[in-house]
Order: sequence, then structure tokens, then C-alpha cells
Amino acid sequence: MALRARALYDFRSENPGEISLREHEVLSLCSEQDIEGWLEGVNSRGDRGLFPASYVQVIRAPAAEPPPPARYANVPVGGFEPLPPPAAFKPAAQQPPPAAPSQGSDDDWDDDWDDSSTVADEPGALGSSYPDYETAGGGAPGRYRLSTRSDLSLGSRGGSGHPAGHPHPPGGGSAKSSATVSRNLNRFSTFVKSGGEAFVLGEASGFVKDGDKLCVVLGPRGPEWQENPYPFQCSIEDPTKQTKFKGMKSYIAYKLVPSHTGQQVHRRYKHFDWLYGRLAEKFPVISVPHLPEKQATGRFEEDFISKRRKGLAWWMDHMCSHPVLAQCDAFQHFLTCPSTDEKAWKQGKRKAEKDEMVGANFFLTISVPTGPGASLDLQEVESQVDGFKAFTKKMDESALQLNHTANEFARKQVTGFKKEYQKVGHSFKCLSQAFELDQQAFSAGLNQAIAFTAEAYDAIGDLFADQPRQDLDPVMDLLALYQGHLANFPDIIHVQKGALTKVKESKRHVEEGKMELQKAEGIQERCNIISFATLAEINHFHKIRVRDFKSQMQHFLQQQILFFQKVTQKLEEALHKYDSV
Amino acid sequence: MALRARALYDFRSENPGEISLREHEVLSLCSEQDIEGWLEGVNSRGDRGLFPASYVQVIRAPAAEPPPPARYANVPVGGFEPLPPPAAFKPAAQQPPPAAPSQGSDDDWDDDWDDSSTVADEPGALGSSYPDYETAGGGAPGRYRLSTRSDLSLGSRGGSGHPAGHPHPPGGGSAKSSATVSRNLNRFSTFVKSGGEAFVLGEASGFVKDGDKLCVVLGPRGPEWQENPYPFQCSIEDPTKQTKFKGMKSYIAYKLVPSHTGQQVHRRYKHFDWLYGRLAEKFPVISVPHLPEKQATGRFEEDFISKRRKGLAWWMDHMCSHPVLAQCDAFQHFLTCPSTDEKAWKQGKRKAEKDEMVGANFFLTISVPTGPGASLDLQEVESQVDGFKAFTKKMDESALQLNHTANEFARKQVTGFKKEYQKVGHSFKCLSQAFELDQQAFSAGLNQAIAFTAEAYDAIGDLFADQPRQDLDPVMDLLALYQGHLANFPDIIHVQKGALTKVKESKRHVEEGKMELQKAEGIQERCNIISFATLAEINHFHKIRVRDFKSQMQHFLQQQILFFQKVTQKLEEALHKYDSV
Repeated sequence: MALRARALYDFRSENPGEISLREHEVLSLCSEQDIEGWLEGVNSRGDRGLFPASYVQVIRAPAAEPPPPARYANVPVGGFEPLPPPAAFKPAAQQPPPAAPSQGSDDDWDDDWDDSSTVADEPGALGSSYPDYETAGGGAPGRYRLSTRSDLSLGSRGGSGHPAGHPHPPGGGSAKSSATVSRNLNRFSTFVKSGGEAFVLGEASGFVKDGDKLCVVLGPRGPEWQENPYPFQCSIEDPTKQTKFKGMKSYIAYKLVPSHTGQQVHRRYKHFDWLYGRLAEKFPVISVPHLPEKQATGRFEEDFISKRRKGLAWWMDHMCSHPVLAQCDAFQHFLTCPSTDEKAWKQGKRKAEKDEMVGANFFLTISVPTGPGASLDLQEVESQVDGFKAFTKKMDESALQLNHTANEFARKQVTGFKKEYQKVGHSFKCLSQAFELDQQAFSAGLNQAIAFTAEAYDAIGDLFADQPRQDLDPVMDLLALYQGHLANFPDIIHVQKGALTKVKESKRHVEEGKMELQKAEGIQERCNIISFATLAEINHFHKIRVRDFKSQMQHFLQQQILFFQKVTQKLEEALHKYDSV
Repeated sequence: MALRARALYDFRSENPGEISLREHEVLSLCSEQDIEGWLEGVNSRGDRGLFPASYVQVIRAPAAEPPPPARYANVPVGGFEPLPPPAAFKPAAQQPPPAAPSQGSDDDWDDDWDDSSTVADEPGALGSSYPDYETAGGGAPGRYRLSTRSDLSLGSRGGSGHPAGHPHPPGGGSAKSSATVSRNLNRFSTFVKSGGEAFVLGEASGFVKDGDKLCVVLGPRGPEWQENPYPFQCSIEDPTKQTKFKGMKSYIAYKLVPSHTGQQVHRRYKHFDWLYGRLAEKFPVISVPHLPEKQATGRFEEDFISKRRKGLAWWMDHMCSHPVLAQCDAFQHFLTCPSTDEKAWKQGKRKAEKDEMVGANFFLTISVPTGPGASLDLQEVESQVDGFKAFTKKMDESALQLNHTANEFARKQVTGFKKEYQKVGHSFKCLSQAFELDQQAFSAGLNQAIAFTAEAYDAIGDLFADQPRQDLDPVMDLLALYQGHLANFPDIIHVQKGALTKVKESKRHVEEGKMELQKAEGIQERCNIISFATLAEINHFHKIRVRDFKSQMQHFLQQQILFFQKVTQKLEEALHKYDSV
């Protein structure tokens, strides 16, 4: 039986697979069952695709048309079937691919989804030495473009605090006319999904153990995460190809040695990916560093393995540097559980997946400074967050540009520069060969010196080609990591802005006598917690940014200097050959 | 009245403007008057063009066709009208342009032909910083392509000792069937034109003053020109724009200071050109260095003046380095006659132009080693000359290639390399500007350091663009000079080979009883003189070649080293800025 629905609000499609709706329009539904809050159907213009379930009202009446020939015909490959469980809904680049639900039985843990993923699942040409990051936007590749986009569009990227793809429905959660501080009707908002709304409205409840407490303290530059009292690092080395099922399946394992235990463990990319999924779900206002991208083909090529190892090492550095992430249970389990103890691993994994302090409850674990002078001025917070938003936008643009330039510069050195110097070398070689025909014993020294000069220029060509690996590649690795962070911040900012809106709303309601002061104070207090956490995260970002860019610029310049010194040395050796001529 | 002629021999056209003839073919002539030994006409296939007058016999009978509409319709622009006097016939790139006969009254001396030359007279885009030498062949530009080619084709360039464009007519000077050692029928041969033939056949006579004697001595590496007992150098500086006729005419004068007088004189390019013409005519077996090319437009542009000055300085260096050229009267007159003494100048000029020791008579002035062991083995000479011929061919090819490479490399540095480094600089600048939005006082140092790094890369881009002027341009200047020499040698070799052929011919005639032994011995003796001179010239070439290429390679490498040191220094300054961050 064909189903129909009537659109309650206008909806403008923004991504492939979505269709636009006009208020009062009648649509045919493919199924009454929503998928993560989305329905599939055909609108009055005959376009087939997805739209928010909350924007329509189902009409129970038979439709004349036959059902569409195939389900999800318009859904992008690698879309959303089979369905990840609802709890995993978040920026999709952070999700494991469909074949491996991030939560569930341990039975499918051993599925080699990272081995069997298809090309369509993995955009981005990682096989090439210098992938063009231009299309990757803020570091969130379009793997699950549908949901990624709808999330990203909520944040600063669209230049608007309002979700472009999913406008607040009229009369919804914005403070226009509602008489109570209600839930946002836009259930796609990060503010809602993160649990930020539920927390601010006082709906979160849970028992917070002391060990779970996350402290924000007041540092000289404002709110900061309390430092990790036991800082550590963790090396990632020796990526080794391993096989199972008698060689039928193969994968790369990395050796991890955390400095606080000194015990090495071996982890695969899918373990990193699982951990990433847990953390991204658990910490809504923390920028969990993105993992280096997956790739479908050539996974065992040396260049790729080396590049991924470096990417993972950067990722690990940012994990260890973050006071909250470094200390969290799932990460510690990942770092310390012996690779051979299957049982202990599954136990820790299950525990992490059953963690109740996620979403709204996570905010309960944050403890902020109290007492006089510890309260944040709302306007000042808003201005700071807005400033940071402008900063991230500009930094994202310049990182994109620098990445593009570095990429091009590397390509030019590997091809053009090398070729030019080697052509000079070749021409000198031809000259020395011509001179060798001169039958003059007294010029043999000159001929040899010119031949040596030819070799020097040939070698300089090779130096140019090898150089990007030493200096530009590390810069691009760093930029990729930061592009991931910059893609995270719009959501973080959005949660903070959602909370601030609730405070303003509640204040107005109190003035209008529609809300008790105590309830409004509760909202403000909880908003305060979110603001403290957000500012602490912003401060942490600046701290590691300055640290990383300083050291990376120094490294880059040192490598460039070494390079030009090597070139100079080659030339000096060649010049020296003429002394005895 | 239309004229006709019958071809006596086959003639194959090799250059634009020439037409091919078949033996017995009847042609229409445009004029009975030959131009430098060439006639213009239309062959039986209807092709109109030039052919050697000696290859046809004029038939005095009217032709049916009307005369061709225009004279010289097929003659390349800047061809050979008005006619230079016959004595000036030699590789045409060495000739002054048509409007200024190299010999003649002093009345036209002041004609500013170097001011009024047209673009069509001057191929080669000297206006650009990096002219493409590719088309210039062995350094002899195609200015007077017609005669240049026909001369060049006599030598090693075609890979054959026989003139490709003008084969020995059957029964001519080659030793096939003639019963006497006769004059070559091919009057276009350099051997004939240089006077070499007349000298070898004993037809030259003149009174040689002691001061005119040119000595070849036996050095450790074989025959050498006797060294100049009073070696000197001459600087060329301060090219200055001067005017005459109340500013109507302007020209560039160069200040010359010869080290043996210390007295400065001023000379214009046309004075150099006059001198060059005298020397090229006087010394058939000496490679007179070519002058830097003329150019029609932009003569007063700074780049061109500076480039020409460097070219003239190289030319001057080779003049002073050559024992024969350095000491010859015309050159000394040029170097020492006061610029202001018009009368003395004209006197010296007229004397040089009336010099009788030119052509065949020049060979009379050469004195060679005598006595036991001083006679040259004919076969050995032949093998040495052949070896040198192969050498010049290879050197010419590699010089052409190196020139092309240097030209391209310079262009790449001025454009591509500069752009790449400056793009890196620009991207760093954008990054520092983004970072300045961060509202964090503690990162100001980093932002400034990155901004400084941006400037360093911008400066490195400029260094790359400036560099070719320091290192590649001098290499190209040197190559241009050598390409001139390499274009001279085919003629020199041809004269020596012509002499050798006469010796072989005379020996056979003696064996056949057709010639007196004494006469044959005279021929061999005179051929010996030419061989000594040729070998001395070859030795001199190798000597200055090794000297020049050694010093130029050293200079090139030193400049490259300086350059990379400057780059390194820029980077070190930038790196230093991060110390205090």
C-alpha cells in the first residue's frame, strides 16, 4: 500500500539525495519508516529523494502510482544502508563505514571492513603522492556526504549560525513566539543531537564518579582544561603487514609504545577508527582530532603506509596533548590493553560502548570554577566565540591555500625543477663529451671537471625531487590534521550558541512572568558550564596551534636550509675539480 | 629582349632563392648581368630564382614569354642588392650590411647605417632578454642567408668536404681527368676566394716587409703562432649615448683603454664592424672572432647596450689573445688612433683598405719552421684536420644544446621558479594574517615570524629571477663567441683541404710525366705553409677554448654557490625569528 504525506513546512534540498518540499505539498512515501529522522519519497515535481520526517505529516490513503522500482535509487553509493544505530548519528566522516556498526556485538568486530571497503566508499586519491586537498574542504571528506553536509551546514561554514539545510521551522525552537523554553523543533541541530539542549533544559541526569570529573580551571588566558597531571606521549612505529585466515586476509599493524607504560601494543587502523567513533560520540564540545583518511586501493604501498603512519603519529600527538582526551578510559584501554589478551580487549570495548556519560550526560561530568569572579559574562563569551568563529574561517581558508601551494610546489620540484637541473647536467655532459674529441692531452682535466659538474647538476635535480618529502610533506600532514579540527569547531560553536539562545529565551520569559526565576537560573548555570568547556577547548586549540606551527615552521626552514646547503656542497665539490685543471 | 641560357651541368638548389638546373636544360634569364657570379632566371619547370652563372651558357635568342613582372621577386628580403663589391665576398654574416660597402670612399663613413638598418636586415629577436639561439645555427645568423649558406655548405657542416650546393662541375678542378693542375672551375669555393688556390699554384707575388712577417713556430703541441712579445689587454667600458647633427642622429660610443698605451679612445659599433671586415678579408686561415649581433630596434635599451658591451669585451679579449690579430696594423690603428684626430683616422683607414697583403698575398707573409724535422707529414696533417673537423661539429652541436638549455633554464628561473617561491611566500603571508585574528597576545611572535618567513620566500623568488644575469648570461655570451669561431672553421679547413688536393694532383701528374718535379715541389712547399698556419690556428683555438671554458665554468659555479648561499642566509634569518617565539 502506497503512502502519502503532506509537507508541514518548506524544505530546501542542499545535498545530493535530498528533495525540496513546499508547505502543503503532498508526497508519495517509499516507506513510513524513517531513517535517522529522514523519509524517502517522491514530491509533486516527480523528484525522488530524502527529506526530514518532522517536516511532513503522513496521510494514510492509497496512492494510484505503483511503488518505485527500487528502494534508495537516488541514495548515493555508500549511503546509509544498512542503518547505523541512531546513537551513532554524528558528522558522518567520523563514522565507521556501514558494514561495521560502531556499536553492537563483538561478533562483527573481526570483520575486515577496512579491507573490504570499496572505492566508492573512499573518495580522495590517496594513492598519489600529492593528493589534491582542494576538494576535501575542511578535512571532512565526502564519504557520507549526505549527513556530513547537513551537519557541517549547521555551523559557521555556511556563514550563518542557522542551519542552512534545515531552517528552524516556523514557530519552532527559536525565541520568536513560543511561550515556554521548549525543545527545538529542528531535531537535526547539533545542539539537539549533542545532548546540549537536553542538558541545558535540565533533562540530563546520571551519577558522576569522581574519576569521570572533567575540570575547567581559570588560567592566565581564561578557562582551561585542567592539565593532565601525568602527561605522556605515545610513539607509532613499524607498520607491519600481517595476515590471518591462512593469508586470505592481510592488514597493517602499527606498534604503539605509550611512554607512561613503556609496554608496546599493536593496533590496526580499524582499532583507531573504533576509538575515534567512541570519542567523537562522547565529547560533544571537544575537537577530537580526525584520523588520516582511509583509502581503498594500494593500501600496502610503501608511500601510503608511511604517510598513514605519520598521520596517525600526528593524531596520537594531539590525543596525548589534550588533557581530557588523554585521560579518558577508552583511550587508555586502547593504549594499554595487551594486543594478545582478546578477552580484556572485548571487555574494555564493551565498557566503552556502554558508557552512560555521553551526550547530555557528558556535560554533567564537567566541573567549572565557582565562587566570586568565576561567572562568565554572557556578552563577553558571545564576542569571544564569534571572534574565534571568524578566526577559524580565515585559518581554514589560509590552510587550504597553503596546502594547495605546498602541493603544487612539491609537484613542481619533483617534476619541473628536477628536470631543469638535470637538463643543465645533461648539456654539460654533452659538452664534456664533445671536448673529449679534442685530441689534446692538456685539456683532459677540464673535460673531467665538466663531466663532474654534469653529475653534480644531475644530483641536484634528484635533491630537488627528494626534498618535498623532507619539508613540504610534514607541513601538509600538519595542515590535514588542523583542517580536521577546523571542521569540528562549527559544531562545538553551535552547541555553545544553542545554549546561549536558551538563556536569552528564558530571561525574556522571566521578564514576561512566564517562567520561574529559579528555572531560568538553572538554565544559565548549565549554559555557563557549556561556555566554560567551549572556551577551554578554544584555548587548548590556540595553545597546541602555536606550539605545532612554531615547531613545524622551524622544521620546514631547517630542512630547506639543509637542502640548500647540500646543493651548495655539490657545487663546491664541482668547483674544486677545476683547481687542478 | 628576353635572354635564354643552357645549363652546362646539373645544379641542385640548397637555399631559398636558388633554383635547380639539369644539364642541357634551357632557362629564361632575367638579366645577362651576373650578381657575384649568380644569375637570375626561370627554369623549365617554371621555378624562378638564382643559379651559378658559370653553370650555364647564354643563348642569344628571343624568348616568347614576357619578362617576369618584377626583378628578384624570389630573392629573400635583405638579399644582395645593392651589390657589395666583389672583394668583400665571404661568409655574409661577417659583412657589413648592403648600405655600407666595406670598402670605398670616406664620404660614406659617417652614414649611420647602423642607425638606419631595417628590421628585415636583422633577424633574431635581440630585444628579448633571452633570444632563442636555436635558429641561429652555428652562430652565423641568417642575415645574408643566401651566401652564408653557400659558403657554410663548403665545409664540415654538411658532413662532406665537397661543396654540397656547388658540386665540382664535371671535368673541373677535382683530380678526375684533367691533365694539368688547373684552376678550380668552381669559383665559389673558399679555397679559390681566399686566394689559397692562387697561392698554392704559385700565382701570388708581393713584397713582404719584415714587419708583416707572421711566424709559425714548433711548440710542444705542434705548430703554433709565435707569441706576441708585447701582450696587452683592452677594456671596453662606459657605453655612452652621443648625438650629432644637433641631436638628429644618436649612437653609442664605447670607451676603450688598451693596456699597452693606457690612452683611452672612443669607438662606435660601426668602427668595430669596419675593422672586422678588414680582418676577415685579410686573414683567410685565421678565425676572426665574430662581433655581437646587430639589432634594429631598441638599440638604446639598457639591457641591449649592456649585453653588447659584454659581447664586445669578449670579442676584444679574443682579439688581444690572438698573436697575429693582436699585432696587425688595422687593429693597432683602431686601438690607438685618437678619437679626435679625424685626419689620422682616415689615413689609417685608407692604408688598411689598400693593404696588398690580403688574399693570396697574405700567405706570402707566413714564415714556417725550416730545416730537418720541420716538414709536415701530409697524411698526419690530413688526419689531424679531419679530427678537428669532427671535434668542431660535435662542439657546435653541444654548444647549441647548452645554449638552448641555459636559455630555457634562465627563462624558467625568471618566470616559474620565481613564481613558485613567491606563491609559497604569499601562502605564508595569508597564514600569518589569519593567525593575527586569533586575539592571543602570546602568539604575536609566531605571527611575526611567519610574516617574516613569507617575506624571505618572496625575496628568494626575486633572487631566482635575478640569478641568470649573474651566471647563465655570461655562459651564453661565451657560447655565442665560440659559435662564431665554429662557423669560421669550415672555411679554414676547406682552404687547407684544397691545398692538399692540389698537392696530390701534382704528384700524380709528376708520376704520369705531365709535370716537372720542381713545380710539384713548389706546390707542396706552399701547401706546407698553409698546413702550418692551419695547425697553428687549431692549436690556438684549443688553447683559448680550454682557458675560456675553465674560467667560465668556474665563474658559473662560483655564482651559483653565491646564489644558494644567499638563499640559505635568507632562510636562516627567517628561522632565527622563531627563536624568541
